[in-house]
Amino acid sequence: MSCSYVNIKLIISYDGSNYHGWQRQRGKPTVQGILENTLKKMLAKIKVTGAGRTDAGAHALGQVANFHVDKLKMPVKKLRTVLNNLLPEDIRILEASSCPLSFDSRRSAKGKTYIYLVCNSEMILPFFSKYSWHMPVKLNINKMIAAGACLAGTHDFASFMSSGSSVKTTIRTIKSIRIVKDDPFITFCIRGNGFLKQMVRNIVGSLVEVGLGKMTPNEFKGILAKKDRTAAGRCAPAKGLFLLSVEY
Amino acid sequence: MSCSYVNIKLIISYDGSNYHGWQRQRGKPTVQGILENTLKKMLAKIKVTGAGRTDAGAHALGQVANFHVDKLKMPVKKLRTVLNNLLPEDIRILEASSCPLSFDSRRSAKGKTYIYLVCNSEMILPFFSKYSWHMPVKLNINKMIAAGACLAGTHDFASFMSSGSSVKTTIRTIKSIRIVKDDPFITFCIRGNGFLKQMVRNIVGSLVEVGLGKMTPNEFKGILAKKDRTAAGRCAPAKGLFLLSVEY
Repeated sequence: MSCSYVNIKLIISYDGSNYHGWQRQRGKPTVQGILENTLKKMLAKIKVTGAGRTDAGAHALGQVANFHVDKLKMPVKKLRTVLNNLLPEDIRILEASSCPLSFDSRRSAKGKTYIYLVCNSEMILPFFSKYSWHMPVKLNINKMIAAGACLAGTHDFASFMSSGSSVKTTIRTIKSIRIVKDDPFITFCIRGNGFLKQMVRNIVGSLVEVGLGKMTPNEFKGILAKKDRTAAGRCAPAKGLFLLSVEY
Repeated sequence: MSCSYVNIKLIISYDGSNYHGWQRQRGKPTVQGILENTLKKMLAKIKVTGAGRTDAGAHALGQVANFHVDKLKMPVKKLRTVLNNLLPEDIRILEASSCPLSFDSRRSAKGKTYIYLVCNSEMILPFFSKYSWHMPVKLNINKMIAAGACLAGTHDFASFMSSGSSVKTTIRTIKSIRIVKDDPFITFCIRGNGFLKQMVRNIVGSLVEVGLGKMTPNEFKGILAKKDRTAAGRCAPAKGLFLLSVEY
């Protein structure tokens, strides 16, 4: 290993509307794919590690990624500008810095915060339709807050995990859940130590059913105990989901 | 004329990112074109009149349009929902109502209000890049306000008209101009009785040069007197422009 070997940490915001999620996929545009292709042009063939996969159509305000490179060819403080000049406008590097060689954006993560936007008004402006879930019927926010409170803490979230992922355990800790109304939006902010596949979207989908009066807060609380995906409501669409930040 | 002949007024919001402006053009997607094609499927071949053309890439929060139809085939109060179900998500009908047969969205207009968004921060989030002009260098807002004040009132705005339009007169009245900072955005709000081709974008382009210190407020004031487009600064990009409302 040469002394110029470095580990670079990136904080990234992207509009996921035009991407099949974070993770590189053959023949489909993904954020990781675009980023790796751009770094290949600039530096070398590089594997970028992301803190978390985001779903197709979901967005990020503070995704974290890192990559090792033998020689950076430029001062690290220039990296952000150079990358942003080469990347499409819907992917922005907010920060680029060198970090300890041991840092791994995925394994080192202690937690993540997601926000989910519901546009709760009869009409939705066209500017918001790719960034929120339009719900034209008025939601009862107090019932959703009452229902959501049971999620805080350490639980088996199997009922809120979509199929198609293999995990050692479905136990996760939700550190906080906040549901805030700021017309026309209702924002769900969920902070946890880790999330199962589509867990935030499945939670929001069921909370919205509570808000619509299709499920009582008590019925919502019963979902967790069942540890069965079919117990929960629908999965909220990806376009309302934003990875806000990753904690280390 | 049958007694069922009606004049329908629409208030429309659109994200202009994917359109070549309002006005129908052969072989290019435009808002008027999409709307007329949709109405043709629903009702009949219909010519829609818009209050104003908007440029390719510019947006609308409250464009007004109207059309005459011999027989509506449905209650007018259902029209909005039916149209919105058929239109793409980036064009939304906010209101649809019947109006006097004499109403003409273009000729009857007494004034229009435009807003222009500048994102004045070192970095721009990807969500804002299609809806504002990114200006990474800090703008002096007080100098822009001082310069812009001279625009209020009735003047010959020839210096702020882009070429390629034929108008009887280049005299217009600006009823108010407000420039407001709300980090990271600077919003220019301009209300007038009418606007020349790309007038708002040319005004904002020159005001930004004042904000950057490339032109003094006094030099800006001199532009009007010259009545010559080459006296003004660059034309601000269309993506920051929104037709806010039309007054009748």
